[in-house]
Amino acid sequence: MKFGLNFFPTVDPREKSAAQYYDECLAICARADELGFSSVKTVEHYFFAYGGYSPDPVTFLTAVAMRTKRIRLVTGAVLPIFNHPIKLAAKLAMLDNLSHGRLDVGFGRAFLPDEFAAFQVSMEKSRPRFEEGIEAVKTLWTQDPATFHGRFHQFGPVRLLPRPYQQPHPPIYIAAALNPQSLEWAGRLGYHIMVVPYILPTAAMQELLRVYRAAWRAAGHPPGQEQIQMSYHCYVAEDGDEARRRAKVLFDDYNAKFLAAVQAWANRTSTQYPGYENLVNARQGKSFESDYAEGKLFVGSPEEVVRLIEQARGWFGDFEASLQVNFSTATLPEALRTLELLAQHVIPQFQPAGTAGGLAGVAPA
Amino acid sequence: MKFGLNFFPTVDPREKSAAQYYDECLAICARADELGFSSVKTVEHYFFAYGGYSPDPVTFLTAVAMRTKRIRLVTGAVLPIFNHPIKLAAKLAMLDNLSHGRLDVGFGRAFLPDEFAAFQVSMEKSRPRFEEGIEAVKTLWTQDPATFHGRFHQFGPVRLLPRPYQQPHPPIYIAAALNPQSLEWAGRLGYHIMVVPYILPTAAMQELLRVYRAAWRAAGHPPGQEQIQMSYHCYVAEDGDEARRRAKVLFDDYNAKFLAAVQAWANRTSTQYPGYENLVNARQGKSFESDYAEGKLFVGSPEEVVRLIEQARGWFGDFEASLQVNFSTATLPEALRTLELLAQHVIPQFQPAGTAGGLAGVAPA
Repeated sequence: MKFGLNFFPTVDPREKSAAQYYDECLAICARADELGFSSVKTVEHYFFAYGGYSPDPVTFLTAVAMRTKRIRLVTGAVLPIFNHPIKLAAKLAMLDNLSHGRLDVGFGRAFLPDEFAAFQVSMEKSRPRFEEGIEAVKTLWTQDPATFHGRFHQFGPVRLLPRPYQQPHPPIYIAAALNPQSLEWAGRLGYHIMVVPYILPTAAMQELLRVYRAAWRAAGHPPGQEQIQMSYHCYVAEDGDEARRRAKVLFDDYNAKFLAAVQAWANRTSTQYPGYENLVNARQGKSFESDYAEGKLFVGSPEEVVRLIEQARGWFGDFEASLQVNFSTATLPEALRTLELLAQHVIPQFQPAGTAGGLAGVAPA
Repeated sequence: MKFGLNFFPTVDPREKSAAQYYDECLAICARADELGFSSVKTVEHYFFAYGGYSPDPVTFLTAVAMRTKRIRLVTGAVLPIFNHPIKLAAKLAMLDNLSHGRLDVGFGRAFLPDEFAAFQVSMEKSRPRFEEGIEAVKTLWTQDPATFHGRFHQFGPVRLLPRPYQQPHPPIYIAAALNPQSLEWAGRLGYHIMVVPYILPTAAMQELLRVYRAAWRAAGHPPGQEQIQMSYHCYVAEDGDEARRRAKVLFDDYNAKFLAAVQAWANRTSTQYPGYENLVNARQGKSFESDYAEGKLFVGSPEEVVRLIEQARGWFGDFEASLQVNFSTATLPEALRTLELLAQHVIPQFQPAGTAGGLAGVAPA
């Protein structure tokens, strides 16, 4: 089992400056790289404390690439709907070269109405724009010269520069939240996926993964080769009660910032986003206590967190954990403590006996 | 006088991979930072050996920021016409924070017809789009929340995140080539400028600077506070003849790649780009020998290069030199030799007597 990091900033400038937030993230990444963590992921969002410090994942991941040697760099996700495909394909290829092939590209469809409004793009064409955007980027990466005649973009023949470092192109993930159609489509086309278990009942999450894996196999992709990244909030301390007390403060603040960003969904529906109109209601009744009780938060002592991860693997099968260790206003020492305790006491429990697994060469803290 | 670097990639994948090109640039930047050079600049271009390895200057400069401690990072330039202002303002603000306020933002109008065609933007509205794009970015940086009702973009109220590190915003430069109107406008609005002397007769370049400085003063901006970055190809070797032999090969190749990229201008004119239809003709008759004879290339032994720079200062007054030290297929050892010779023998000639100037703390090679 692989363990990576997920940076989803949920902090306001009044609470922590962007410069401090980035500095702390880079320190966490440098240590995670030494400790053998598998990946660093970050998101694309705008305007809100929820995600707003990460409007351009490629910029952040380029900084991470320069501070690390082997960890994978994951866009989780970039949003084709707000980025011209030439621009997106080109800067991702730059990062792939700057990192010597450590890039995994997750694409997302975007779901915050205020972002669509600011970019003056209709949510009602979100899915065709998303699918065409990915096709256009892949065309630029793989054809030389590339010609594309889509519904929203036409170009070529042009030669994308730089060419991707990984050939034919970096691995592709699809970020999916609630919609079985997205997961069926991703599985059918042979894309990996990134999902967020805490926003759904466990049974619903299991059903989404069943749909995905079934579509993957039905399309003839090799069973077991699909990659599933699952994002979890994670707070580990030697004293499990201390971890829960502190994680409660941070997670309830995170949830409040999420609700502020999705508020626009309270008053609308979209055929392109079935069920999203319930996002506000679904999360308004939630708290640290309820999500923790449902096994959706990896919080506690190392031993407790081992059991929570085992439980999640029982529900979902194999996955790569993508852990938020500095959500909300968590401090750098707190995040580093979580990292060290994971590396010393949690991750070794998920390595095959007699191997160092993904943690080869771990330096003790 | 300040001495910075300019990375304008002019190399094809068959000649040098992008990964190798970036690695070499980063090694040059790290050494330039130690040696006290003032700035690192890079361009935004697509598709051609001429500039194509730099489709996203922010990505490259973010990597540079992580490998350096004090050198300034300069977009030279970003192109508002191919970038949504929210996206552009946001990622520039990320870099400003990641670098703790080392960003200077140069904006350019773009001039390659094939780039406009691929992005499906008309060249005929290039100037209003350019000016509005800068206004939109400044609005996002300085207003919180920001509202904008332009001809091409409307948004708000939204809060740009992250906020710029430098307040109210990073210094702004305008990249200008041939057009007195651009320089008059830049001076009037109090923007700094970046220009490229080798593409024009010296008298024409002098006239552009005269227009700029006159507009700056007439608008009431403090005389002498305007910043002028001038890009020069630079190749220094102990043996001046060796420098000229090698620079000839590299510069003639650079010029050939420039001509390939501007070929589309051979068959068109644009009211927005007066004189650009002559670009191909003007450069087709040029070679290393003719440009060198006109004092437009900083090539030779250290002593010869000192005299060339003195000559340019006599023509143009104070400026920051923005030096291309690895143009075309120049090797890393060649570029580093140029750097070291500049730092040891050339730059000290332009520091006020008794001061270390911009080269405080220089470590001998």
